[in-house]
Amino acid sequence: MIKPKYHVFVCSSSKVNGTQKGFCHSKESVNLIQAFMEEIDERDLSSEVMVTNTGCFGICEKGPVVVVYPEGTWYGNVSKKDVARIAEEHLEGGNPVKDLII
Amino acid sequence: MIKPKYHVFVCSSSKVNGTQKGFCHSKESVNLIQAFMEEIDERDLSSEVMVTNTGCFGICEKGPVVVVYPEGTWYGNVSKKDVARIAEEHLEGGNPVKDLII
Repeated sequence: MIKPKYHVFVCSSSKVNGTQKGFCHSKESVNLIQAFMEEIDERDLSSEVMVTNTGCFGICEKGPVVVVYPEGTWYGNVSKKDVARIAEEHLEGGNPVKDLII
Repeated sequence: MIKPKYHVFVCSSSKVNGTQKGFCHSKESVNLIQAFMEEIDERDLSSEVMVTNTGCFGICEKGPVVVVYPEGTWYGNVSKKDVARIAEEHLEGGNPVKDLII
């Protein structure tokens, strides 16, 4: 799939030199990515939502950071329990989750 | 900076398990990221353009892949010589480089 309806970028502190070290990664961002993939699969959104891991967004103190395009919605301090809300309200319902926005 | 005017995502084949292995990475995507950063700096676009490395976009055969949001423009087979064009025409001029789009 290219050109998804929603593209979810989850910081996994992946550095271009191959190491993976950083705040988002230490806060279990890998589990967050897995949780997004499961939610998207369960809600049958796989054909329109793509999840991609990224390197640092530069605001580690607000991590784990998740950015959703095309809106450019920046979520901070995202935990696994927030994933279902983002999936339901934003990716399915079209309304960003205001209280998680940074 | 959050909420950049343009957000350039460059696949660097960064895997969530920390290893970095894949087509885009083998095609020198790391140099591509460096080239984008230099172009953006030289054109004084640092306050409005962000560059982020990512994991695989799933279309390795068209790599290196670069995706620019908020438009959702997908560029394929991007080489270092294309970076100046993307910076000048798209990031500075606002017009995606049509012949590089996949």
